[in-house]
Amino acid sequence: MRLDKLAKTVDKGCGAIFGISNVFYFTGYSGAGVLVYCDGVFTLLVPALEENRALDTKGVEVKVYYPAKIRGDIQYSSVMEALEKIVGNNPLSVDVSYMDVNTYIRLSNKFQIRDISQQVSSLRAVKDPDELENIKVAGEITSIAMKMAMERATEKVSEKQLSGFIDYTMKNEGAEDYAFPSIVASGENSAEPHHIPTNRVIREGDSVVVDIGAKFNGYCFDSTRTLLVKSYSEELRKVYEVVLEAQLEAIDAVTEGIKASEIDRIARKVIERSGFGKYFIHSTGHGVGIDVHESPYVSFNSNDVLKENMVITVEPGIYIKGKFGVRIEDTLIVTKGKPVVLETTYKLL
Amino acid sequence: MRLDKLAKTVDKGCGAIFGISNVFYFTGYSGAGVLVYCDGVFTLLVPALEENRALDTKGVEVKVYYPAKIRGDIQYSSVMEALEKIVGNNPLSVDVSYMDVNTYIRLSNKFQIRDISQQVSSLRAVKDPDELENIKVAGEITSIAMKMAMERATEKVSEKQLSGFIDYTMKNEGAEDYAFPSIVASGENSAEPHHIPTNRVIREGDSVVVDIGAKFNGYCFDSTRTLLVKSYSEELRKVYEVVLEAQLEAIDAVTEGIKASEIDRIARKVIERSGFGKYFIHSTGHGVGIDVHESPYVSFNSNDVLKENMVITVEPGIYIKGKFGVRIEDTLIVTKGKPVVLETTYKLL
Repeated sequence: MRLDKLAKTVDKGCGAIFGISNVFYFTGYSGAGVLVYCDGVFTLLVPALEENRALDTKGVEVKVYYPAKIRGDIQYSSVMEALEKIVGNNPLSVDVSYMDVNTYIRLSNKFQIRDISQQVSSLRAVKDPDELENIKVAGEITSIAMKMAMERATEKVSEKQLSGFIDYTMKNEGAEDYAFPSIVASGENSAEPHHIPTNRVIREGDSVVVDIGAKFNGYCFDSTRTLLVKSYSEELRKVYEVVLEAQLEAIDAVTEGIKASEIDRIARKVIERSGFGKYFIHSTGHGVGIDVHESPYVSFNSNDVLKENMVITVEPGIYIKGKFGVRIEDTLIVTKGKPVVLETTYKLL
Repeated sequence: MRLDKLAKTVDKGCGAIFGISNVFYFTGYSGAGVLVYCDGVFTLLVPALEENRALDTKGVEVKVYYPAKIRGDIQYSSVMEALEKIVGNNPLSVDVSYMDVNTYIRLSNKFQIRDISQQVSSLRAVKDPDELENIKVAGEITSIAMKMAMERATEKVSEKQLSGFIDYTMKNEGAEDYAFPSIVASGENSAEPHHIPTNRVIREGDSVVVDIGAKFNGYCFDSTRTLLVKSYSEELRKVYEVVLEAQLEAIDAVTEGIKASEIDRIARKVIERSGFGKYFIHSTGHGVGIDVHESPYVSFNSNDVLKENMVITVEPGIYIKGKFGVRIEDTLIVTKGKPVVLETTYKLL
């Protein structure tokens, strides 16, 4: 039970969990609100707007705030008023990474704050079986959309149109949302890792980077494939092969106990020794869960160590401005042996 | 030129603009990064990942940071290092509402901080002609998707499927993204204002709340229609008529110089006198622009006054748990006379 994990983490005094993804992690409720823990009681504070969908949440007392107190049963005019009444003079544990600055300033003026962001992100990084199951389903949905995209990319569609096909397919296959805005980047545009789809129509010789992820039951997936449309250049083929080799070598090294920075180092080394090091301009991967980017971070300066049932991406890339980009990404589960790769779309040329 | 507006707002010392939407507002560049103004020079600091798409930004010097300094021309290992070198001992104007807590703490320890969030949100609230044009196009795209949705909602589709049709249509019509996750809420689910689409299949007698918005050239739109599927109850029809009356009365009052809180009061009064006051559990509207929720806020406790060329929503609703919900929303431009309503989908029963 995840509420117990919060109680243990807060330990002394009270705790207030801000941030939709954090509150969802501990309660299963997804919407605006703050989860408060004090004296063994969990209170889910929600704005009146969210009351109807908060009421089914188990293990918590739902209390509603609304500035107008439009009904007799609305107890608080704000989160701050509620916290003052519930928390009183107790020290307050919070995760500052999911809080806006003005809230932080107000809380700091009222309470003795303790930041538990590291503990919360460490908890969230190692997935429970039900979380892994949701990520797997999100992966199946994403894989179906990715295969469709790889086929339709050759049909003279624009980036926007192809991203629309992809989004429709993910929803139709059961996604409730997208983990992030779908990226379709073709030709020169593929040299922008976070390209926003345009009206550019895909054509012969293009590199087409498709970076997408479904969201299922609150859990994200993250996958990238790069399609090379026929009559592509030798240079593009060479770059593709380097990225793929880097990705496969890095994936092969993923296992419990290895430093995340080591995975980055392995991918980067392959790319550097091929002479493309200066074009690999981002880190190798990141954790995936309720947020599409979360702990652990697979970068050269990460201090994270991989553990069983962490879910991470491995996604090296090479981006040459004015020419093209290539990125290949899988989402995988860390185990004590070889990782479980969840994306099923082919990536060989 | 919007960079000049920033220079004026910062006035003395230097300024650092965080937040994708703020940086986009002043520069037209959309991606991770920080816009710095010092001694008449604008510097756009971007991570190496974003360099390729930042380079075309006009009026700014693009400088790149990356922890590894993988190339000789990467000058900074972090935003903080760059700010220390560029800003020095000058006081620093920032918008704290677009900054995470850890950044705020680090900046506060290094610089004398001045919060310009109010000034920036006031600037952004009044739209320039090019911004209005983008919002209009986003509205045309949204209207096409909305009409399609109203037609297909009767075809035994699930909430997820219908939201997929909608998303595909918006992309196919030219949206580069969605302003927010498309809401399709049917039957009892429509009593949750921010419902996430499920597998529930729409059926006779349902209320179907469709709340969607396209994003075009960086600008959002926000529109809601509620479809009543044939053989709906008398109670549902009555509620629909009350919400529509509240919406039309409130829209009719929108004009330069009126308090935003007055618009909320007008909508609320119609709903209260029909006996549904306790079911109108959110504010009447909000500004729309680069962010789908931005200044001004159309709520009973807002201090904002409407000005010509602000863009706002008017969206009263009634939500009865276990039964249904109804919301009707338009995005409109404030003028010196009657407002310009941008959504073109019919809303009469």
